[in-house]
Amino acid sequence: MSVNRKTAARLVAEAASMREVIIEKMSSDGGHVGSPLAVIEVIQALVDVFDFPKDKIVFDGAHQMHAYKLLTDRAEAFATMDHRGGIGEYADIHESPYDFYIGGRIGISVSAALGYAVNHPEYKSIALLGDGSMTAGQPFEALNHAGALAPNLLVIYNDNDYAVTETVGYLHTRNTQREFSESLGFEYVGVVDGHDTQKLIELFEDIKQRKRPVFLHVKTVKGKGYEPALRDPVTFHWLDPFDLATGELKKKPVNKFRDLILKKAPQLVEKHGEVYYVSPAAARSTGLKELKKIYPDHVFDTGINEQHCVTFSAALALNGNKVICFVPATFFPRALDQIIDACMLRVPMVFVLPGSGISRQGQTLQGIYTLPILNAIPNAELYHPASLAEFDRLLDRALEHDGPVFIHKPGEDIETGITESGVVKVREGGKLSVISIGNTLGKALRLADALGDVQVLHIQKVKPVDLEALERSMGDNSRMLILEDGFVRSGIGQHIVANLLHRPISYEILGIRDRFPSIGTLDEVFEDIGFDDAAVLAAARQLLNA
Amino acid sequence: MSVNRKTAARLVAEAASMREVIIEKMSSDGGHVGSPLAVIEVIQALVDVFDFPKDKIVFDGAHQMHAYKLLTDRAEAFATMDHRGGIGEYADIHESPYDFYIGGRIGISVSAALGYAVNHPEYKSIALLGDGSMTAGQPFEALNHAGALAPNLLVIYNDNDYAVTETVGYLHTRNTQREFSESLGFEYVGVVDGHDTQKLIELFEDIKQRKRPVFLHVKTVKGKGYEPALRDPVTFHWLDPFDLATGELKKKPVNKFRDLILKKAPQLVEKHGEVYYVSPAAARSTGLKELKKIYPDHVFDTGINEQHCVTFSAALALNGNKVICFVPATFFPRALDQIIDACMLRVPMVFVLPGSGISRQGQTLQGIYTLPILNAIPNAELYHPASLAEFDRLLDRALEHDGPVFIHKPGEDIETGITESGVVKVREGGKLSVISIGNTLGKALRLADALGDVQVLHIQKVKPVDLEALERSMGDNSRMLILEDGFVRSGIGQHIVANLLHRPISYEILGIRDRFPSIGTLDEVFEDIGFDDAAVLAAARQLLNA
Repeated sequence: MSVNRKTAARLVAEAASMREVIIEKMSSDGGHVGSPLAVIEVIQALVDVFDFPKDKIVFDGAHQMHAYKLLTDRAEAFATMDHRGGIGEYADIHESPYDFYIGGRIGISVSAALGYAVNHPEYKSIALLGDGSMTAGQPFEALNHAGALAPNLLVIYNDNDYAVTETVGYLHTRNTQREFSESLGFEYVGVVDGHDTQKLIELFEDIKQRKRPVFLHVKTVKGKGYEPALRDPVTFHWLDPFDLATGELKKKPVNKFRDLILKKAPQLVEKHGEVYYVSPAAARSTGLKELKKIYPDHVFDTGINEQHCVTFSAALALNGNKVICFVPATFFPRALDQIIDACMLRVPMVFVLPGSGISRQGQTLQGIYTLPILNAIPNAELYHPASLAEFDRLLDRALEHDGPVFIHKPGEDIETGITESGVVKVREGGKLSVISIGNTLGKALRLADALGDVQVLHIQKVKPVDLEALERSMGDNSRMLILEDGFVRSGIGQHIVANLLHRPISYEILGIRDRFPSIGTLDEVFEDIGFDDAAVLAAARQLLNA
Repeated sequence: MSVNRKTAARLVAEAASMREVIIEKMSSDGGHVGSPLAVIEVIQALVDVFDFPKDKIVFDGAHQMHAYKLLTDRAEAFATMDHRGGIGEYADIHESPYDFYIGGRIGISVSAALGYAVNHPEYKSIALLGDGSMTAGQPFEALNHAGALAPNLLVIYNDNDYAVTETVGYLHTRNTQREFSESLGFEYVGVVDGHDTQKLIELFEDIKQRKRPVFLHVKTVKGKGYEPALRDPVTFHWLDPFDLATGELKKKPVNKFRDLILKKAPQLVEKHGEVYYVSPAAARSTGLKELKKIYPDHVFDTGINEQHCVTFSAALALNGNKVICFVPATFFPRALDQIIDACMLRVPMVFVLPGSGISRQGQTLQGIYTLPILNAIPNAELYHPASLAEFDRLLDRALEHDGPVFIHKPGEDIETGITESGVVKVREGGKLSVISIGNTLGKALRLADALGDVQVLHIQKVKPVDLEALERSMGDNSRMLILEDGFVRSGIGQHIVANLLHRPISYEILGIRDRFPSIGTLDEVFEDIGFDDAAVLAAARQLLNA
């Protein structure tokens, strides 16, 4: 903080030491590497000049804030990041008085910083956002509002050329940030070297005195200070544990999903003619980055803008094309209004949703909203495959459907076959029917192994569930255990129960109760929410004894 | 179309005649007046120069497109607009081959027009959006993407100074549209008089030849050609039936809700100190327009940007203020991601949601998403008052709660009192329990009157429903009819049933099944979806006979 100014030499040593700590931590646990390394000097200068928590700062998609955690009050806890009971990877007001919002989502920083700035000219309110974040609409909404209010606000545009993959859009690729920010009432300052700590300190001292909106454009290098991250900034955006010396992943990466998308593409072109692939910045793991090279006019990474992406994709489909729109399940709520439009229009198009269900990625990056919401929305169909082979065949089916189809990317790889009804009997048994919704088929089969004589039904077509087929499949079973990879409230399980229970039956639904998941390994997360194998077994036993 | 060019005199006569048709229709049925009158000449010129449906056009928040309907294929059907079985007020691909998307939502036009433009340089793709729409983030997302793709796209910025109330934001109030659009790769043309048809025709002829992104800034007058609408553009944005000659509303307008908000404001300031009122452009009916004059620094109309508005409001609340954020229920899905953030953060703040439940405003303006979605989201509380007096007391309660509370604005005015549990016994009876969720208490009471000995329970606290209190209230009743003002799937009714049905009970849930509501009067809408009084009575009789 400003009371403890550091010497230039101390700042350089501190930066080097923080780089080491961050790289070492990420190499052993996995996590974001490139972005936090890029803003170390910016954060040092900010903490040096401003007086947090009197001054305020909001990080956009707060995966870049590691140095801030180290420099405020979480140096000692840093090694516990993302461990059960430890600190999170993002900002959280419940973690530290130095945090002012929550992290994990893109586009929120200017809005939140403006909320803190209103009627408070006596301190500086700061938003730190990347060029990738500026492809989202919300920062524009906030800048336009802020320009009119003219508060004591600093927006730092951290230009490192990458969202996850290369940043798209005219604003960034043509470097019109000055014209853009001035048109919204900001004083533009830039471009500034984001690794020159002394210069940044001088600049922040100056900006501190200006009690009006400033848009500061800093140029940083993603992965700065770590050779493997510099060589491959896309991989090093986020990755699993890696070897510190070489940057090699400890486990050889396999992405069968991407391989399938790439292999399938020419077949789909042959069958359907015009096929478009669109995604809001999820080009890395979906194969779109590679597909773009083969079909440059038919593959679009729109940027981090789910709203635009969905409407744009729907219009492409209405214009007579086959369209596959890849929206990560965790970002599904961001495009809900536009998805509802597509459902009203009954647009024949396919949404592929990677990352559905309960995950280990902390509370802000869960894929648990698709089940309750798509169940409610008319004209929507939702498929959940339990294997890649099943996904392959369901994608073919979806492309023939005369309306919008949503398909979860499978989180398991258990082959079950396809049925017309979308209810698949995976295991026969008379004691109990276990209904698997989402990535819970493994759990269901392990329970069947443990108990014996347990029927397992995989719900392949989740919306609408074929209730008659389900009831038929259950035969004379009068006990039902539903395993739902998401919220129990308003979930598919409640829908099934409310419809089937006109017959006498005893049942239980397991999933997440009324809370957000905590951090930890996936096993720990399931244990915390009472949905691990032991809890499933206990619930089954209770049903059997009732 | 371009094959049938009209003379200047004919265009003038045609404009006058369309104005007459539109004003007359709206005076008798109610609807949007100011916006459609403003763009008559722009639409005439577009239809004159371009060759729809070969060329494409998407209207933003398509309440402005009346003249387009008259000039394409809906002149004869125009009188049936918003009548059961008639045409809708907005665009709809299922209504006409001249429509290319769906209307009712703000911000979608550039995205959809871009979807049509991609790989189609041979025709012009056009988006027509107002200055109010440009306070939303989605058009920015689309412009930034379009600038980089450089397609044959025309974006018309219809500048009439109003969203519903006066347009806010730096871009519009400071007239920086040129700098803004150029910074996103568009050629800026303007400002052009939007009522000079001949000049517009010449201009469009010229723009037709430019196969690249053009941002055309036209200045129009909201309510052009109708004196009462010119005098009061805010009232004449949308209104109930009015006298054609004077513009006086046929029924004297009463807004007790606004009166309550205004009366309550000084009391809340006295009690809580800093109180903020925020809304994404819903300032007209909520009282915020008047409140802003009294508390200019504490009332914010952010523009049509639900995402920014919610994050901004949440930060205001985290900074120690009481915050009441007014988000119309129909626009609730647009801010879902930001609302989830607020729930994760457990921000103590209040969301007031006007317009919840099934409405007569066509499929795109329904308030039916809050029940299933808020039921699923952890830390959210949802209250539904059945009267203004109840709203008043629940708002006080919500402002004391240590987390986010959502309150529906009541759609009925039936006083019931307040209970700690949020389950209110409104009528005693032993034959049947009727559970009222949302604006269905009137229906429930009419059923009780018709049948006698029917218990009526009003669910005041919808999320979480106090299931124990509900079960206790039901006593020995073993028949339950749930009336839900929204989707049956994933609704509160299914949640109740799935939890209560561990006891033997027979039940039925009435609400909307898996479809969007159609147009018509509210009675006709309820009839169409099988939720009118007769259907409620029939369902009750069936339960009693079972």
